[in-house]
Amino acid sequence: MRLALVGGTGDQGFGLALRFAAAGHEVVIGSREEERALKAAERAVEILSEHGYEDATVEGRENEKAVSDADVVLLTVPFFAVIETVRGLRDALPDDAIIVDVTVPLETAIGGRPTRTITPWEGSAAETVQSLVEQPVVSAFENVSAELLRDLDREVECDVVVCSDDEDAKRTVMELAEDIPGVRAIDGGPLANARIVESITALLIGLNQRYGKKGIGIRFTGIE
Amino acid sequence: MRLALVGGTGDQGFGLALRFAAAGHEVVIGSREEERALKAAERAVEILSEHGYEDATVEGRENEKAVSDADVVLLTVPFFAVIETVRGLRDALPDDAIIVDVTVPLETAIGGRPTRTITPWEGSAAETVQSLVEQPVVSAFENVSAELLRDLDREVECDVVVCSDDEDAKRTVMELAEDIPGVRAIDGGPLANARIVESITALLIGLNQRYGKKGIGIRFTGIE
Repeated sequence: MRLALVGGTGDQGFGLALRFAAAGHEVVIGSREEERALKAAERAVEILSEHGYEDATVEGRENEKAVSDADVVLLTVPFFAVIETVRGLRDALPDDAIIVDVTVPLETAIGGRPTRTITPWEGSAAETVQSLVEQPVVSAFENVSAELLRDLDREVECDVVVCSDDEDAKRTVMELAEDIPGVRAIDGGPLANARIVESITALLIGLNQRYGKKGIGIRFTGIE
Repeated sequence: MRLALVGGTGDQGFGLALRFAAAGHEVVIGSREEERALKAAERAVEILSEHGYEDATVEGRENEKAVSDADVVLLTVPFFAVIETVRGLRDALPDDAIIVDVTVPLETAIGGRPTRTITPWEGSAAETVQSLVEQPVVSAFENVSAELLRDLDREVECDVVVCSDDEDAKRTVMELAEDIPGVRAIDGGPLANARIVESITALLIGLNQRYGKKGIGIRFTGIE
């Protein structure tokens, strides 16, 4: 699949870009500045080839061009930038693209702490995005540690909760998530549940701080 | 320790009563009606003795008497009843008791769905309780399946996130949680984080529905 990572030069987006490229997807890293996107793509190709993924494909483009021919567009910008970013990209988004919202409304968006969230009007970042686009929005990857994503030597030992009101889009993203070694995709139900999943990110950040770790994640027991 | 389970005739409270009695604590099941409390205690003793815990101590009392000499008071009533219950028990609570809030503000409290929460004024059920009492409130046990708690043949394979603004009370409840076989206690930080933990319960109820299970729980990875 062709995947565009809007804001893919950031920690989370770059980590996802590496993993998806390693899994054989055509990945485009997007940035507001083409130059930064190109640099990040170059670095990604370098890291991937060091780990034996010589055929991995990572391009760098300005955000608008990055999404223009994507099957799946992943939003990995900071929350404070997400509304403006989506508004700016609306015309460029393919009609049949799936939009994956990875953003989390951490209190940092208003100068606060990363261990707390703020509540957007629609209830979650994902529903905020859905209110701006016609394409199906899927919430996913908020609880995966960027640290683990970027370390291609390790499996990403955690579950990815996937929420959407569009069942087909949800299934596609669940399959995509499981292309990352160690990840199990969990059907998180309707998009409104993203508010729970997003707040778990704040909890995980707090746990990392208290336990002096960097890659704490979640697994659900009893599903097998 | 002497533990009182307010509303201990319900699924969650009864399950916790069994586990704590099996671990050797003195357990008192409380109910609004003494008769129901006595019956539940009798049943608990029966189940415990069937599983080889002949010395387990479970008493039944009316709620007010149940809490009067408790070291730890666990609130396991439905959310719609919690404010009235705590107000009614305030004078009976020992000054040095620890209050453990297990309630979850599920939408069922207002006739809605158990897969959704409502937001109380203080942000969480636990903070609502803390606003009513002087004693330290600890949030815990919301994400443990009642089903698993009641099945003494099985380990309760999940983490219990414990949140409080009182570090000593938090430590006590973390130790208490780990008396349940299979449970690992996690320091969830301040009491305000209970809003996240409580909402995870709604997510877990939805997962149980979607996956046709009864005992789905959570584990945090990367803490070891």
